[in-house]
Amino acid sequence: MTLPSPLSGVVPPVCTPLTPDNEVDVASLVRLVDHLVAGGVDGLFVLGSSSEAAFLPDRHRAVVVDTVVRHVAGQLPVLAGAIDMATLRVLDHARAAAEAGADGIVVTAPFYTRTHPAEIARHYRLVAGRCGLPVFAYDLPVSVHSKLGADLVLGLAAEGTLAGLKDSSGDEGAFREVVLGARARGDISGFSVLTGAELTVDSALAMGADGVVPGLGNVDPAGYARLYAYCRGGDRERARVEQERLCALFGMVRVGDPARMGGSSSALGAFKAALFLRGVIDCPVTADPQIPLSAEEVGRVGKFLAAAGLL
Amino acid sequence: MTLPSPLSGVVPPVCTPLTPDNEVDVASLVRLVDHLVAGGVDGLFVLGSSSEAAFLPDRHRAVVVDTVVRHVAGQLPVLAGAIDMATLRVLDHARAAAEAGADGIVVTAPFYTRTHPAEIARHYRLVAGRCGLPVFAYDLPVSVHSKLGADLVLGLAAEGTLAGLKDSSGDEGAFREVVLGARARGDISGFSVLTGAELTVDSALAMGADGVVPGLGNVDPAGYARLYAYCRGGDRERARVEQERLCALFGMVRVGDPARMGGSSSALGAFKAALFLRGVIDCPVTADPQIPLSAEEVGRVGKFLAAAGLL
Amino acid sequence: MTLPSPLSGVVPPVCTPLTPDNEVDVASLVRLVDHLVAGGVDGLFVLGSSSEAAFLPDRHRAVVVDTVVRHVAGQLPVLAGAIDMATLRVLDHARAAAEAGADGIVVTAPFYTRTHPAEIARHYRLVAGRCGLPVFAYDLPVSVHSKLGADLVLGLAAEGTLAGLKDSSGDEGAFREVVLGARARGDISGFSVLTGAELTVDSALAMGADGVVPGLGNVDPAGYARLYAYCRGGDRERARVEQERLCALFGMVRVGDPARMGGSSSALGAFKAALFLRGVIDCPVTADPQIPLSAEEVGRVGKFLAAAGLL
Amino acid sequence: MTLPSPLSGVVPPVCTPLTPDNEVDVASLVRLVDHLVAGGVDGLFVLGSSSEAAFLPDRHRAVVVDTVVRHVAGQLPVLAGAIDMATLRVLDHARAAAEAGADGIVVTAPFYTRTHPAEIARHYRLVAGRCGLPVFAYDLPVSVHSKLGADLVLGLAAEGTLAGLKDSSGDEGAFREVVLGARARGDISGFSVLTGAELTVDSALAMGADGVVPGLGNVDPAGYARLYAYCRGGDRERARVEQERLCALFGMVRVGDPARMGGSSSALGAFKAALFLRGVIDCPVTADPQIPLSAEEVGRVGKFLAAAGLL
Repeated sequence: MTLPSPLSGVVPPVCTPLTPDNEVDVASLVRLVDHLVAGGVDGLFVLGSSSEAAFLPDRHRAVVVDTVVRHVAGQLPVLAGAIDMATLRVLDHARAAAEAGADGIVVTAPFYTRTHPAEIARHYRLVAGRCGLPVFAYDLPVSVHSKLGADLVLGLAAEGTLAGLKDSSGDEGAFREVVLGARARGDISGFSVLTGAELTVDSALAMGADGVVPGLGNVDPAGYARLYAYCRGGDRERARVEQERLCALFGMVRVGDPARMGGSSSALGAFKAALFLRGVIDCPVTADPQIPLSAEEVGRVGKFLAAAGLL
Repeated sequence: MTLPSPLSGVVPPVCTPLTPDNEVDVASLVRLVDHLVAGGVDGLFVLGSSSEAAFLPDRHRAVVVDTVVRHVAGQLPVLAGAIDMATLRVLDHARAAAEAGADGIVVTAPFYTRTHPAEIARHYRLVAGRCGLPVFAYDLPVSVHSKLGADLVLGLAAEGTLAGLKDSSGDEGAFREVVLGARARGDISGFSVLTGAELTVDSALAMGADGVVPGLGNVDPAGYARLYAYCRGGDRERARVEQERLCALFGMVRVGDPARMGGSSSALGAFKAALFLRGVIDCPVTADPQIPLSAEEVGRVGKFLAAAGLL
Repeated sequence: MTLPSPLSGVVPPVCTPLTPDNEVDVASLVRLVDHLVAGGVDGLFVLGSSSEAAFLPDRHRAVVVDTVVRHVAGQLPVLAGAIDMATLRVLDHARAAAEAGADGIVVTAPFYTRTHPAEIARHYRLVAGRCGLPVFAYDLPVSVHSKLGADLVLGLAAEGTLAGLKDSSGDEGAFREVVLGARARGDISGFSVLTGAELTVDSALAMGADGVVPGLGNVDPAGYARLYAYCRGGDRERARVEQERLCALFGMVRVGDPARMGGSSSALGAFKAALFLRGVIDCPVTADPQIPLSAEEVGRVGKFLAAAGLL
Repeated sequence: MTLPSPLSGVVPPVCTPLTPDNEVDVASLVRLVDHLVAGGVDGLFVLGSSSEAAFLPDRHRAVVVDTVVRHVAGQLPVLAGAIDMATLRVLDHARAAAEAGADGIVVTAPFYTRTHPAEIARHYRLVAGRCGLPVFAYDLPVSVHSKLGADLVLGLAAEGTLAGLKDSSGDEGAFREVVLGARARGDISGFSVLTGAELTVDSALAMGADGVVPGLGNVDPAGYARLYAYCRGGDRERARVEQERLCALFGMVRVGDPARMGGSSSALGAFKAALFLRGVIDCPVTADPQIPLSAEEVGRVGKFLAAAGLL
């Protein structure tokens, strides 16, 4: 399909269900997509951080994009992460996504290597110039250890390099500068500004964001769809109440014992445990080398679901 | 060949010569290998950070390992970096390296994802258990944003997971703890402790390190081979003088204007410019999206070479 | 005066006007206080980061608290920063503030030393137990390099150690967790949750924050007072428009050339230049070793003022 | 006394013994100084990081400098840390140190505030220009979160601003650049380059460092004095053996449980426990809000002492 311009609404980063031996569980992935579509989302983002893209080999990535693009069959736009260290590697992923029929790609700044704003700009220009798909910048300092400045993003938007921004920096002040900067310029009217911040979707939309890419949207897509609808409809009070319910639900990301595992094992483990407990996926395993949640920790995920009315 | 146990001596991380359109320049790579072998090195490390592994797509990586393994034909051990974000992706690179005939692989902690010591240990165990090659831990906090603790490394060595350590942390105190810890244990006599620190090779060898993996060794392999020989022969004064000459030469890594490019563009650009000026490679280009050195900056690289007696 | 419980409204961090030789300019400070009071603020916070507390010796700090407390004479509550590295040094500042008549103190986590949550908790308990004034936690990771967790803050609130939080972390998701956590507990009803984020005041108040501590409030206190009133009155649209005007004004913090000075020199220099241009203070100098803005940069501050209708 | 030019030898950062209620224990401090002098050290550095300067209020700092300067009575040079956030606050400490008779001051880059190399240079120039004592730069990125570049340090040395460098960055490559840069210039012959790295003193002296400032030197000053003498005498083998004994002893810094306390509580707690167990000081307490070692942890400190032949 042609990507809406700007892309807006709820575009969850789709978790990647795995089998116990770390293969893509295609049947569960299809059920997850159905669950998201039934929840009322407006697009899908595969192979992002919440999809464990960093953990997935290329053959897994190919299965994911292919499965999801075929299954949605143009009902919804599908963005694909092209997560890798530098330009040529990103381009390989971008081409694979294009061949599989993705509608756009999502690309971080270079990482592993020490980088510089001039190199980041060159990276986006080279990727956009060669990949044949709209490119969304993915601002994720916690992973790539550099922050995309508002001026850099807006300049790349104005020259046609970037189609949108997926901001997972957690820096709402800087995010607002992009939103206001994009509105102030006459030349980037189709530019899409999306936030990855699960806990402040109502704020981001009130500021003027186009949409939201919530990892927690895997667990409760209908909740985020309602939240988006309330915000767009101007019903701020119901939006706040819905957002606060989702904030409480988000507490699940900390069920994992920090003495025993990192934040990724805990958060992605919780999302997958929740999808398993809700009957969406067959197996809650996360990709190696993440540490699995204990039975007690999974039990606590269940309590978060129950408290949010999701069990 | 069978990897020496422990691996020792000078094992430079081999630069990856590229053509102007960012393909691997095989002829230059072969000449570079000859240049290193002629310089008297004891092994080769391909696809490390100085090789621009982060920038190279898989097909480039394959060409590099294949070319170098075939060309050295067992004269020297060849280690190959398996640089990627997490276990399954690293294993793909490790298998490719094994098939091409590399003698060992070099693996960092997971990156991009937030990680934890328990996850790092699990990562090394899974990689070592499945790849069929000796595994060297690559400690590189500047790239992966976590530091491998001495206890972690020594424990993984004792259980047979790790064959060696390539320490590029720049933390000589922590490096010494590994050296002394390895010596103090009776159970890891073949464990190889290598430093990546170009400027303190004499110190590291005096502490008891087995060998050295200097990026600058591309430019002056004979210098590092002499330095190693002086250290092993107990000629501390000549070692110091040689090391200081190499320290002065290392100043080339800062020729690039920091207002215009990052540290990687400058340092890798300088090494390649030096190899070009010395007639070893045909083209000094670095991989996208790095910024090329200006003619003036290349000229300054030439002055460093001249001052070190290398032009 | 007795501190309101919770403290709410607009509580700007008061800039510290200096003479050209870096003494406190008492007459300008009094005029600045009058300017803030006339603007309709609800309290004053002296000796915070925007006050250049890190730069001010103890005698300057004493003059500031004494001048402001005397001048407001109980019309408004006055909080005083007690900014220092660890407990005993903080207590000296806290006692000085208490003697001068401040109504509460604002305290960061320990810094310079590497710290730990258990040490941070102990720090706040010791300070609160000995200083005789309500203690506000100051969450400022950019300065102290640790983040105050929501659980830590709420636990210290529940035990009576903390009277409030001044959150300048820029992490709106974590901020919301404190707001919601404080509301969910029955035992900390007087706990005050304040944000230091100039650009998202409307969002923070919509989430349930009690008040706002905007550095930019020095320049336009009436704007923040209007914004607060619109938010409290439920007039979201006028709040948004006012907030966006203030967002544009905030752009002044980047007038300083980053090749020539740090972010503090630029931002604090811009606030003081704006106060100078508006006729509130006699001299825009910032404390040593900050770099002064150039005439051209001051001119750009003037353009920001003019665009916001403040000249 | 007049400070030697360059200052050389072993200059331990003197711990600050405290009473159980966190007052300076003057009698213990005097015994500690005697213990250090008897151990053969060449100078004393009070109010550094190992002295808990960050934790000590000004009145404690004054007692420390005064006590030590009077007690050594010109037998040895005494450097005093002037540890604070920015210029004016540092100058207050510098003046106090000068009045008490210190022979030089040790000053970090500004901290708490975000800083810039131009501001760091201005800071050192203002401090040196006004304080009337030789100024040593203290490079301590772990505390102040910026690194002093070799060019910055050497430039400030050449213009007469800096008398020396105390490098606690742990970056031995960068340290060597300062050593070699200082030697290469004809204009800074009295500049003193000192390392704070306890574990690589033999390396640093072999590189050409003038001296060493080891926190562990409180516990075993005679060990460091022997190590220094062996190095200066060219007896590399005995130096290595002595250094390795000290490396093993240094393991005490990790006795504290990281789940319960930070690195400072553990390391400073271990040094003080060792001094207590050796009978040098009366009480091993560290300053608030540090967490005390448990009896079991103190017992492990004792085992380190015994293994090093110090009990």
